[in-house]
Amino acid sequence: MSSDLLSRVHTSLRSKIMDPSTTARLLRERLSEKGVISIGTSGFGSVGYPKTFPRALADLAAEEDLKLIVLTGASAYAMDDYMAEKGVVDRRYPYQNNPKMRKLINEGVVNFMDYHLGEWPSLVENGWLYRFMPEGLDVAVVEAAKVLEDGFIPTGSVGAVPAWVELAKYVIIEVNLDVSEAVEGIHDIYRPKHGEPIPIRRVSDRIGAPKVKVPPGKILGIVESHGIDHGGEPAEPGDVERRIAENLVNFLLEEVSRGRLPHNLYPLESGVGVVNDAVFKNLREAGFKGLTAWTEVVQDSLLNLYEEGVMDAMSCTSLMLTPGNLERFYAGEYDRSRIILRPQDVTNNWEVIRRLRVIAVNTAVEFDIYGNVNSTHILGSKIINGIGGSADFSRNAYLSIFIAPSTRKGGRISTVVPMVSHVDTIDHDVDVIITEQGVCDLRGLSPRERAELIIERCAHPDFRDALWSYYKRALGRGGHIPHMLEEAFSFHIRLLRSGSMK
Amino acid sequence: MSSDLLSRVHTSLRSKIMDPSTTARLLRERLSEKGVISIGTSGFGSVGYPKTFPRALADLAAEEDLKLIVLTGASAYAMDDYMAEKGVVDRRYPYQNNPKMRKLINEGVVNFMDYHLGEWPSLVENGWLYRFMPEGLDVAVVEAAKVLEDGFIPTGSVGAVPAWVELAKYVIIEVNLDVSEAVEGIHDIYRPKHGEPIPIRRVSDRIGAPKVKVPPGKILGIVESHGIDHGGEPAEPGDVERRIAENLVNFLLEEVSRGRLPHNLYPLESGVGVVNDAVFKNLREAGFKGLTAWTEVVQDSLLNLYEEGVMDAMSCTSLMLTPGNLERFYAGEYDRSRIILRPQDVTNNWEVIRRLRVIAVNTAVEFDIYGNVNSTHILGSKIINGIGGSADFSRNAYLSIFIAPSTRKGGRISTVVPMVSHVDTIDHDVDVIITEQGVCDLRGLSPRERAELIIERCAHPDFRDALWSYYKRALGRGGHIPHMLEEAFSFHIRLLRSGSMK
Repeated sequence: MSSDLLSRVHTSLRSKIMDPSTTARLLRERLSEKGVISIGTSGFGSVGYPKTFPRALADLAAEEDLKLIVLTGASAYAMDDYMAEKGVVDRRYPYQNNPKMRKLINEGVVNFMDYHLGEWPSLVENGWLYRFMPEGLDVAVVEAAKVLEDGFIPTGSVGAVPAWVELAKYVIIEVNLDVSEAVEGIHDIYRPKHGEPIPIRRVSDRIGAPKVKVPPGKILGIVESHGIDHGGEPAEPGDVERRIAENLVNFLLEEVSRGRLPHNLYPLESGVGVVNDAVFKNLREAGFKGLTAWTEVVQDSLLNLYEEGVMDAMSCTSLMLTPGNLERFYAGEYDRSRIILRPQDVTNNWEVIRRLRVIAVNTAVEFDIYGNVNSTHILGSKIINGIGGSADFSRNAYLSIFIAPSTRKGGRISTVVPMVSHVDTIDHDVDVIITEQGVCDLRGLSPRERAELIIERCAHPDFRDALWSYYKRALGRGGHIPHMLEEAFSFHIRLLRSGSMK
Repeated sequence: MSSDLLSRVHTSLRSKIMDPSTTARLLRERLSEKGVISIGTSGFGSVGYPKTFPRALADLAAEEDLKLIVLTGASAYAMDDYMAEKGVVDRRYPYQNNPKMRKLINEGVVNFMDYHLGEWPSLVENGWLYRFMPEGLDVAVVEAAKVLEDGFIPTGSVGAVPAWVELAKYVIIEVNLDVSEAVEGIHDIYRPKHGEPIPIRRVSDRIGAPKVKVPPGKILGIVESHGIDHGGEPAEPGDVERRIAENLVNFLLEEVSRGRLPHNLYPLESGVGVVNDAVFKNLREAGFKGLTAWTEVVQDSLLNLYEEGVMDAMSCTSLMLTPGNLERFYAGEYDRSRIILRPQDVTNNWEVIRRLRVIAVNTAVEFDIYGNVNSTHILGSKIINGIGGSADFSRNAYLSIFIAPSTRKGGRISTVVPMVSHVDTIDHDVDVIITEQGVCDLRGLSPRERAELIIERCAHPDFRDALWSYYKRALGRGGHIPHMLEEAFSFHIRLLRSGSMK
């Protein structure tokens, strides 16, 4: 037992320190009658997930033919990797991004359902899994930077931790010694209450506590853990990504100049990735000031804007920084009063997203000519990661923008199709579509007007003729949303048969 | 000018009384440079829509080749009927239920887009129609029971009236002399404010004013109007409807007995119609007490429950009662402190629906085997009415239930299909599906588990084999949501070709 670990655990709880496999066996003893154990873990954006206990539990489960129900906040890459390898997961919710786990899900070996991330903790609380967890959640497994007398300080993400700790019979805490204790003070822990408004009016409002409270009697074990969760170095955007980012920022500038958006915009929600990095760069170059972010994950490009004074306040549920920035962050180089880490049922809360007038920028797998969006399933069947927070934001946003390149796979796949093969966000919740080809502002348009704009402005020229042909022939059939059901998936079927939509 | 009308208009505003065609000409004069005029009218559930001015305006528009953009709260049957006949509508939002208007929409003659009813007033306020109404809303046309010095008392619905009056350049008030002045006091007029929570914590909370305020200078004309908007006498439920209602109420009883719902349930949202009437009857017979309703339209069957002490409080945006009940209602036979008429951006407000834990019961046109719901478009193309409030409630409800008979058109059409031809509510927002065949509780199930349950429990036996055949062959392809895109619409295509899905 390292002295470093001791210094991070309150004296009253040091007797609970044990190694991961002992903790796993102790849990098994307490739940000896069970063939399936449910665990709710920390982890969001593959940051702050538990690193040692899940491995020990997976090993034990593999030995004893025990099955696990694994609930996370969102993605927990390495944890999923190990668990999938061990073949011990019976059910998995509500989001994942690991190829091995994805394979098991697509094969039907792991029962998976993706849920809206903002709603997810309350669904578990409300008994949505009653069939599979009739006695509720067995154990919460959480990563912490420090264990206090009556709770703990989370690490680089919050996710569903406050809910799991409240709902679970037992709590197992992993103290990650590689996370600086200086993380303390950044979290704002609050659980939405039935019948009460969430009292957030501004991005920078703090409404909760800096720690997650736990009744000490619930804590089964405290284990030592190591490992730094960090984002990768940003890639250089290609020509397509650069044009998407330009189109988006030009659109926002135009909205400001027309008086439809304020000069400092409304709070931004944005995914992570090359395009988003380019967007943030362009926002700075366009001279925006006083921006705010109300988003899931804060990455380097956002933190840079904060440092440069372009961004005033940021709220998220996961900090995915590169090692250098993480170090500077923990060294206190940033004023952290306006960077806040919240539970996912607050960051992705529908009431708050709407109230703050968030501008949501999400990435689509495919759009159809009427503006429906598929974010999750290839050819209607194979899941990629899950719906995540995209629908939390797209429906409740003030302005819901979807971006994507107009083609993929070297131009063989068109992102614009006659009908999406799976719907995650319905046409009503898609205000603007942006590709490297152009901007489609769909507000107020009828479906026929939407179709003409999307084909002409956002589709790739290589696919425009085929899309026009579909649309014009469908028009002959009439209807508010002209379609020919026998040809609606013709692009997809061509892809299935020949490897190309052309 | 009748003395009855004079008695209902405050002395300071009597000079504005004029006949509808004079008012229409005056409006035309004020907007003489315009080729298109935008009007925002009262009306929801075909109750409380303006009855005389829109006709006069349509007549004038037909003469002068003037076009109209018509925004309502929701349905305004007779108003749409006349306007469609006159051929003067260029654009129509966000919901309608009139066959003539529907025909023009499906032919692409009228540009229509359905919008979520709870979001709709704020979309107009936020400039979503900037292309078509660059100067904003020209005129609000509202039905009133009484005109006060600084505002008016609406009639049997509120809908989007407070928003239209606030946004419009001019206001035209129709005083309907057939509506009892005793309607005063039932309304709770409140406009959601940017950045502020809506302070409703219980169904019976009043947070606004009993009247809609209007700066007198905005009022262009006050016209006399007549006509009672009432619902039809409830039809007797058939065997199928009775079984759907039984299945639903038995499901709720089971949830209560398992402790997953309180004895008085949570506030109910429910559409109108024979099944819903049967549901309310069964709720009473099952011995429920202390119920509440948070819904769009209150009809006789709900009012009966209130009178019988089964229902404690009801909130809605439209009162659709039969003439006898309307009369008794206005005669003061009901304690109206716990019956409240609110604007649609409050009744259908996402924040409030979620906070109150509403149990939503909506009707589907079709479900697919994975639990996606089509509520609006036949064969993916022809619109029926519009999405209305169904998605306001289905996504934000505590429990989202969809009901439908398992077949239609004498058994030729299956309500359960391999893939819905249009998606209004995605699988994530559908908790329970109920047909006369049975109850499918989908909570926590993976897509494959959902499919097996829906085919076995909710589909009609005549279609089960074909659905199993599709599903089992799709399973061979694998995927999280097994589909065969080239056969996904095989049921619909059979229907198109042969008039039957069999």
